[in-house]
Amino acid sequence: MMKEGELERYLHQHIPVSHAMGVSVVSASRAAVELRAALAPNVNHRSTAFGGSVAALAVLAGWSLLRLGLDGHSPIPQIVIQRSTMEYVVPVRADFNAVCRRPSDTVWQRFMSAYTRRGRGRLSLAVDVVCDGSAVGHLTGVFVAMTAGD
Amino acid sequence: MMKEGELERYLHQHIPVSHAMGVSVVSASRAAVELRAALAPNVNHRSTAFGGSVAALAVLAGWSLLRLGLDGHSPIPQIVIQRSTMEYVVPVRADFNAVCRRPSDTVWQRFMSAYTRRGRGRLSLAVDVVCDGSAVGHLTGVFVAMTAGD
Repeated sequence: MMKEGELERYLHQHIPVSHAMGVSVVSASRAAVELRAALAPNVNHRSTAFGGSVAALAVLAGWSLLRLGLDGHSPIPQIVIQRSTMEYVVPVRADFNAVCRRPSDTVWQRFMSAYTRRGRGRLSLAVDVVCDGSAVGHLTGVFVAMTAGD
Repeated sequence: MMKEGELERYLHQHIPVSHAMGVSVVSASRAAVELRAALAPNVNHRSTAFGGSVAALAVLAGWSLLRLGLDGHSPIPQIVIQRSTMEYVVPVRADFNAVCRRPSDTVWQRFMSAYTRRGRGRLSLAVDVVCDGSAVGHLTGVFVAMTAGD
């Protein structure tokens, strides 16, 4: 499975805006992914984080959790985002992290079973955005995994 | 009121990720704002646009529409995004645009009246994302304008 450094290189190389955003991988496993973004490249006119950057980091965290969970499948399924809802709780005044935890085994197995049976599975993932130890935002993302070529 | 070139310079200077995303201002008035992003800096591992970048461009278009609509107020209200929901319709395979139109006069006046009365008004804005003439996504953003210092 991809380790932290490998995931970070993958993101920077294949999703270059992640490099422009100063994204780093804090931790990455099948159980949880935590990404971090520097404030400076994501700042807005009020010296807080631009909402679009906050949502983008959260989407990346969800995508990464799903990608790691599907690692080892051959071929790797295509992962597509269908919908995302971002709630902005308070302004983000420093570097910020996005944490996505794998859903319960029941939910994950239902998703994998649909993917195996129909070549297409849909999964809703929750991502918490944290700054200086406080929750500053929350994203729910609906992702679809499908067999390549679908 | 800010013209296209001025809005573009403002975005690039104060929200630097917009520069990294290759955002340009196609048109900007009180009635509608259209922004454009180049595909290359926003590409993902599948050579389509990264969903986070698509959502970020749409948030910028909504923010810009609201900012231009409030231009001339003194002091300029603070504009904060509270919630955004992005629907991704089809993959984005080329440069893409985000178009935000001002809501009806009734809705706008209700928003301005709340802002004037309570120093705080909430407005829901719809943004269409378009690529090669086709709708590829849709964002609904809830923005709050408040008196500076609130």
